[in-house]
Amino acid sequence: MRIALLGGTGDVGQGLALRWAYDTDHEVVVGSREASRARTKAEEYVTELESRGTEVAIEGYENARAVENADVVVLAVPPYYVTDTIESVADNLADDAVVVSPAVGMDRHDGGLSYDPPDVGSVTALAAGAAPADVPVVGAFHNLPADRLANLDADLGIDTLVVGDDDDAKDTVTRVGAGIEGLQVLDAGPLANAAEVESLTPLLIDVAMHNEGLHDLGVVFN
Amino acid sequence: MRIALLGGTGDVGQGLALRWAYDTDHEVVVGSREASRARTKAEEYVTELESRGTEVAIEGYENARAVENADVVVLAVPPYYVTDTIESVADNLADDAVVVSPAVGMDRHDGGLSYDPPDVGSVTALAAGAAPADVPVVGAFHNLPADRLANLDADLGIDTLVVGDDDDAKDTVTRVGAGIEGLQVLDAGPLANAAEVESLTPLLIDVAMHNEGLHDLGVVFN
Repeated sequence: MRIALLGGTGDVGQGLALRWAYDTDHEVVVGSREASRARTKAEEYVTELESRGTEVAIEGYENARAVENADVVVLAVPPYYVTDTIESVADNLADDAVVVSPAVGMDRHDGGLSYDPPDVGSVTALAAGAAPADVPVVGAFHNLPADRLANLDADLGIDTLVVGDDDDAKDTVTRVGAGIEGLQVLDAGPLANAAEVESLTPLLIDVAMHNEGLHDLGVVFN
Repeated sequence: MRIALLGGTGDVGQGLALRWAYDTDHEVVVGSREASRARTKAEEYVTELESRGTEVAIEGYENARAVENADVVVLAVPPYYVTDTIESVADNLADDAVVVSPAVGMDRHDGGLSYDPPDVGSVTALAAGAAPADVPVVGAFHNLPADRLANLDADLGIDTLVVGDDDDAKDTVTRVGAGIEGLQVLDAGPLANAAEVESLTPLLIDVAMHNEGLHDLGVVFN
């Protein structure tokens, strides 16, 4: 598979890029609004992987070029860029591309974060509304601990959830996600369940904030 | 401590009653709207514990009497009974009683459940608004797998979260909760975080619904 990580220069994008390149045979492409930034980051990832004896090519392009021929396109951008990002790449998406939305809207208040979804109910629903009608959108990878994900020395041992209305697209994202060592991918049902999945992210941050010794938390369902 | 479980005849109430009576020295009192129902259930719990060689007294009373002299009062009732239940026992609460809210409002839709909080933002906030001003309310025990909790042969090995604005009250609930073997109690911050904590319950049900082999799920933060 060819996986394009739009916003692949950010926290979660970096972790996913490194893990997929290190743990799997998938081809990883880093996308950014600026091609030079994408290239610089892609080179950083290649250097990091080389230092571990893994020789892979990771390309970096401007978003619209990054999605060309990609089987999976991950929108690893802040929630307020989701719509613009999809619109900027829509014409270049491959016929059978699956779009993945990992972003979460959050509000800060005294003592924590609150889930703050867009009016359509979830960022995943927002992405689904912005994508071309024939492109399936799957919510996934919301609740990954970014630092641990990007640290290839760290064991994951955590779960992540996928939501969406297209079963084939969910299967694709599940297989791609499960290729990352120590990551179990669970089905959280249809897109209508996306808000509950996205709500887990502010909760993980709140729990880390209020318990000594816990940080960069993931979650296991058992 | 003396713990009154209002709605202690229901699923989660039963599990908490059995676990506290089995694992700790706390005195457990079962409350119900009908005294006879509370007594019958209390007797069932005593019989179950006796079959395991544990001799304890568990009393059953109508709610208003059950809360007398209780240090901790758990509102193990459906969300739509929370306000009425608090109002029916308010005059009988001990001076230093802590009220615990484990209820969650949920809506069913195709393929899952949605978090459906009351207008004040969370059931915990609803309970806090209904309780007398000097009685602290703590949200806790929302995300316990009811069947596993009530089955004393089952290992828990899960986490639960407490939220609230009164640190002493949270400490009390944390200590009482941590007395249950295999249950780690984590601080999720102030009452303003209650919605994210309560949202976890429909998510656990959705994940159990959509993954073969998973049911009666708990959660671990790691």
